[in-house]
Amino acid sequence: MPTTRKIRLGAFLPGGGQHVAAWRHPESPPDGATSFDLHLKLAQEAERGLFDAYFLADNLSIAFGGGIEGGNAKVAGFEPVTLFSALAPLTKNLGFIATASTTYEEPYNTARKFASLDLISGGRAGWNVVTTATEAAAHNFNLDQQHPHAFRYKRAAEHVEVVKKLWDSFEDDAFLRDKVTGRFFDPDKVHPADHKGEHFKVRGPLNVSRSAQGHPVIVQAGQSDDGRGLAAATAEVIFTAHQKLDTAQEFYRDIKARARGFGRNPDHILVMPGVSPFIGRAEAEAREKYDRLTSLILEEDGIALIKGLTGGTLDLTGVDLDGPLPPVEPTEGMKSRQALIRQIADENGFTIRQLYQHVASARGHFTVVGTPTQIVDILEDWFQNEGADGFNILPPWLPTGLTDFVDLVVPELQRRGLFRTAYEGRTLRENLGLPFPENRWAVERRAAHAAE
Amino acid sequence: MPTTRKIRLGAFLPGGGQHVAAWRHPESPPDGATSFDLHLKLAQEAERGLFDAYFLADNLSIAFGGGIEGGNAKVAGFEPVTLFSALAPLTKNLGFIATASTTYEEPYNTARKFASLDLISGGRAGWNVVTTATEAAAHNFNLDQQHPHAFRYKRAAEHVEVVKKLWDSFEDDAFLRDKVTGRFFDPDKVHPADHKGEHFKVRGPLNVSRSAQGHPVIVQAGQSDDGRGLAAATAEVIFTAHQKLDTAQEFYRDIKARARGFGRNPDHILVMPGVSPFIGRAEAEAREKYDRLTSLILEEDGIALIKGLTGGTLDLTGVDLDGPLPPVEPTEGMKSRQALIRQIADENGFTIRQLYQHVASARGHFTVVGTPTQIVDILEDWFQNEGADGFNILPPWLPTGLTDFVDLVVPELQRRGLFRTAYEGRTLRENLGLPFPENRWAVERRAAHAAE
Repeated sequence: MPTTRKIRLGAFLPGGGQHVAAWRHPESPPDGATSFDLHLKLAQEAERGLFDAYFLADNLSIAFGGGIEGGNAKVAGFEPVTLFSALAPLTKNLGFIATASTTYEEPYNTARKFASLDLISGGRAGWNVVTTATEAAAHNFNLDQQHPHAFRYKRAAEHVEVVKKLWDSFEDDAFLRDKVTGRFFDPDKVHPADHKGEHFKVRGPLNVSRSAQGHPVIVQAGQSDDGRGLAAATAEVIFTAHQKLDTAQEFYRDIKARARGFGRNPDHILVMPGVSPFIGRAEAEAREKYDRLTSLILEEDGIALIKGLTGGTLDLTGVDLDGPLPPVEPTEGMKSRQALIRQIADENGFTIRQLYQHVASARGHFTVVGTPTQIVDILEDWFQNEGADGFNILPPWLPTGLTDFVDLVVPELQRRGLFRTAYEGRTLRENLGLPFPENRWAVERRAAHAAE
Repeated sequence: MPTTRKIRLGAFLPGGGQHVAAWRHPESPPDGATSFDLHLKLAQEAERGLFDAYFLADNLSIAFGGGIEGGNAKVAGFEPVTLFSALAPLTKNLGFIATASTTYEEPYNTARKFASLDLISGGRAGWNVVTTATEAAAHNFNLDQQHPHAFRYKRAAEHVEVVKKLWDSFEDDAFLRDKVTGRFFDPDKVHPADHKGEHFKVRGPLNVSRSAQGHPVIVQAGQSDDGRGLAAATAEVIFTAHQKLDTAQEFYRDIKARARGFGRNPDHILVMPGVSPFIGRAEAEAREKYDRLTSLILEEDGIALIKGLTGGTLDLTGVDLDGPLPPVEPTEGMKSRQALIRQIADENGFTIRQLYQHVASARGHFTVVGTPTQIVDILEDWFQNEGADGFNILPPWLPTGLTDFVDLVVPELQRRGLFRTAYEGRTLRENLGLPFPENRWAVERRAAHAAE
């Protein structure tokens, strides 16, 4: 009997909230970004809502001088992997998807910290692979300017390859731990990576063993051609930003087709668009929540947000905010997001002010305002029509925005049979319905035996 | 009224145990190195014993092929910072001193993960600064051979300097979080590092704020001339390995004199030699515990241990283990440890077998075998006579070796008034009696005001 396909849910919960003005909301703790207690509460709420995973983005800099993209409240916070390690023993089923950079870390260190989080959490870790697309980050890592987009993606592909090799250093039955003979492990089941590539030379083995889910789930959010290629080749979960079902469908079908092209089962790569929900028992209540947060946006934060999302070079000093968005030169930064913002401005005929108000809640992710029924109608439509395998939920402010979703939207999803009523398993892979990744050396040995 | 000087205690507790054969001990869980539950129990035991801090060393490789230095049981384990993050919310007063490498990490990443651990733990983090002295690690980070000893120490000094600058990015009163005006922070109290040096170019600011203890405690274990210089200039705690009081005194006096030479208060740099205790209610019981573990050492593990401790190049294949240690060429690795091992062999006239049995418990740290009274007599002697400000305790096997210390030695230390009976504070600095490090920019502003 085939399992009914279920919606997967990520919870994208930076302690400072998603909306630019989130921290000014009366229900938000003003120090949320640096409050461990708030993050613990968020993890527990997400687990109460049976979310698959807690997700955190990451930056290797703060924007400074030109303002703070995403709102001042995010100027300082926790590093995601250390934060998730601390939350792991205080939760049981929730996955933890942390972002880390292939451009500014070494594969041995990346492999190690995620493998360690995966062991600590009993197999609930995921790695959101990013190339880090800001000049500000480059300036924190010995560079005068960042590497070109294409270079970053080539390095990323090799970085992921090395990390996955390192994660296979120990076969799952490598450990004997035989006190009588003194044999702790079977040396035939421990493997160096012996990687020599264009960007990295890494011998291995890693000094961390595999976890209950084999290795962390690979997550990506690439939208450009390079990004889609990398994601289709290696990712198991893809986050994406769309304003409408038709672009979501184009992306969904393209990713699944590319995955097939790499010989992969397209069901093993889950496409999850971001959704920023304002939820009311009546539509007017939802609208009121939206308007309330919009009214809290400072002009300077709106300007800084647009600057950040368009590549960091746009100077709006003295420009009429009630006029149209001027042309912006593309940069080597996050190309797909730059294009998305332009598209939102043009298709809607937005003024600069209308544009920043529109993207203030989720920086280009889909914002839905309505009753639980209205919101689930949309999610179901996308889910049933090749727009999504699940959604990454971005509550505009915290913790109440998350509590609204758990108390109002989750029950409606469950009522329609679209979402779980209890966790299926203990590991992130089990809950996401992703296969256990067999150790490459075990596969090779079996193939060699079969050929004999 | 001056506070009576108290002994500081670190607990150096790798889950696999310190002794080469620890994992074979009937009381050791064989999977201790990868068991989160064991590490949690150890942290809770250390806190019950009122230890200042849980300490973990670190390697960026496993020795492979030539055997595993320190015992096979350490072939795989946790990365220290992720492990300590997970333990922090499950403890209240215990400090966490994690090791991280200045050679194979970037300062922005180092600063960030330790600042994050420091926030999560409420100001209980410490960073043990190491340069990572193995060829195997170099091979995991794009190198064919490791950088020379002097190069590593120069890079280390600059790395620490950058990290400390980054930790001062936010003054302690930088955050306004004023919901009414929308001012989240005071830009005059956020500072870039603007570092341009020989090894690093880092603009900053860091995107993590300071913690309740200002910033993590800086710890080092350098014993060579380069190492002592770096430690005296920057460290607040120094771990060290000595077999006898006279060499401990030479080290202690030298470090304090060097610290004075840097204009530092010598009381703000705590010297803590390692001690590996075998504890019995009677001396015979202690001796029995020692002999039991010694009997569990496999010859191959003993040989691998000596190879590792002497720089990784010594081939003892076919050499008579009951003969003397052959000459060993010094390498670019951990020079001071190589010299210490040679000295132990020569001064005691040890055969190879006697040598590895002697260093099996703690790799050159001081091993004491006796009753609580005998052990505390030694600790008190070192503490009162310029040999030590405290000790880093290396229980030979776990968890019972630690429990012995907490139940038998700690009460005797307390009875003599040498050790606390309750934690003095909530941060690691408060408990160690180290001063709160003022933010450099606040100091500068005050100086500028005073000069007006």
